[in-house]
Amino acid sequence: MPKERKTITDFKKLILLLKERKICKRTVVVWPEDSHTQEALFKAVQEGFIQPILVCSKQTREDFAKKNAFQSIDAESPEEAARKAVELVKKGEADILMKGFLNTDVLLRAILDKEVGILPKDTVLTHITAAKLPEYNKLLFFTDAAVIPNPNDKQRRAQVQYIVDFCHAFEIECPKVALIHCSEKVDERHFPYTVSYRSLKEEGEAGAFGKCVIDGPLDLITSCSTEAMKVKHIVSSVNGEADALVFPDIEAGNLFYKTITLFCHAETAAILQGTIAPVVLPSRGDTIESKFYSLALASLISR
Amino acid sequence: MPKERKTITDFKKLILLLKERKICKRTVVVWPEDSHTQEALFKAVQEGFIQPILVCSKQTREDFAKKNAFQSIDAESPEEAARKAVELVKKGEADILMKGFLNTDVLLRAILDKEVGILPKDTVLTHITAAKLPEYNKLLFFTDAAVIPNPNDKQRRAQVQYIVDFCHAFEIECPKVALIHCSEKVDERHFPYTVSYRSLKEEGEAGAFGKCVIDGPLDLITSCSTEAMKVKHIVSSVNGEADALVFPDIEAGNLFYKTITLFCHAETAAILQGTIAPVVLPSRGDTIESKFYSLALASLISR
Repeated sequence: MPKERKTITDFKKLILLLKERKICKRTVVVWPEDSHTQEALFKAVQEGFIQPILVCSKQTREDFAKKNAFQSIDAESPEEAARKAVELVKKGEADILMKGFLNTDVLLRAILDKEVGILPKDTVLTHITAAKLPEYNKLLFFTDAAVIPNPNDKQRRAQVQYIVDFCHAFEIECPKVALIHCSEKVDERHFPYTVSYRSLKEEGEAGAFGKCVIDGPLDLITSCSTEAMKVKHIVSSVNGEADALVFPDIEAGNLFYKTITLFCHAETAAILQGTIAPVVLPSRGDTIESKFYSLALASLISR
Repeated sequence: MPKERKTITDFKKLILLLKERKICKRTVVVWPEDSHTQEALFKAVQEGFIQPILVCSKQTREDFAKKNAFQSIDAESPEEAARKAVELVKKGEADILMKGFLNTDVLLRAILDKEVGILPKDTVLTHITAAKLPEYNKLLFFTDAAVIPNPNDKQRRAQVQYIVDFCHAFEIECPKVALIHCSEKVDERHFPYTVSYRSLKEEGEAGAFGKCVIDGPLDLITSCSTEAMKVKHIVSSVNGEADALVFPDIEAGNLFYKTITLFCHAETAAILQGTIAPVVLPSRGDTIESKFYSLALASLISR
């Protein structure tokens, strides 16, 4: 009898699934010197889906790692911690990489290093967020809020593939992906990417990304409200029920992330994709909860 | 004794102010053949701040205009209605122009017509929205959600000037204007407009736009949350209390508008600026309430 598959529609269900499947991932944490990172980690360990390896200062080793019986490796500086952590991932000794209390640039430099780094050649690095909005009845995945300023065709194709794979990991059988624009019209002159949206839609129909539905250009409201779609007399395979949004550029993606966080009580989780292991890369303003959910997300996605 | 000035922090206060000042504006409405436009108009007339002139079909004249004793002018088509309405504004016989049930393109063609149109030569046409978000303690003005795809320096300067003037009309003595970007760093290579943000900030400090505070690049959260600004150790004259947001491009502006409408229970009002009279240009999905508030906004702004 085939195992029953249940779509994960919020973060609580994600945590339950991780427990049900007894998923526990080795997570190397770079320079976890702040209480937010430590609390998120502690919570994830308690829930059982994370086995941490801290690359930290001696102080944190004494105060936090030893006390909780967490494995730890000494480092003198954030830079050294980043190098050591990336090395561990490269050697296959960790399944997830998490950023602690250091500048994003420092960690990215180690990740992207051509010799010791963990981004395979010719692979697109991008950022994917999962959000639970009180006003939307399922998780909403989107890309890219943090990495690629203006995606070119290759990068956008990779974003679509990653996000479809993501949705599949969340047991969404046939995810609906909306390619976001301010209108539904292709406008080559002002918005050249709307032309590539049409190509992606056709590639999607031909099965290039696996089982999914892709449509665009669509605006946010047409993508996420069946009622509004009908009022506007638009026919779309996404049907106002988008699982995933691909934004035109980082300004749009980042703004969406910040608007729903600040004004819509959204819960979010985010990771980098493209690297040989998922990277949890919180920003300074992120809550403990968001870091915790990001660890959960990474645990599900990590192979 | 100077008249006491009270900042308008929501749309109810705006309506009260219009009544208090006994403001009543002649508003020419192009092709008001739908119930949404008619209901918004009816409400504005009841509140006393609008005196409508309908340019409509004979049917609407019989069914709606006559019944309510509204002045009306016959038109055979939306195109004719647009021309006649714009003409009225040009002759100084109407203070506000409002779009009814027709394609935006048709009305814009009449507005922008070089001979009979109502956009003065070398004047920037842009779109300004006022929003009341449940999570923000005052009105938030922003530009541009609908007109200029990628503002150049001249257009952005005009946007800043319009929005500062807007805030002054709302009795905000020294409006705080945030120039929005995904980060706080100037990045000439990927985001050339962040350089012009710095110039605008300097021009603002020199008094070029009247009494106001301008800062940027700032992200949305730093612009609208004093607490988050402090967590990120950022010092900004906007101080997390932005009255107005200037977005980098139409994708960002339009997405913000749609996100707060769809997911944040925002109330909004919007008009075009640059024309010799304010233009209320609702989109198909807008609510009656939003059209009503837009009329109120136009009434305050119209000279």
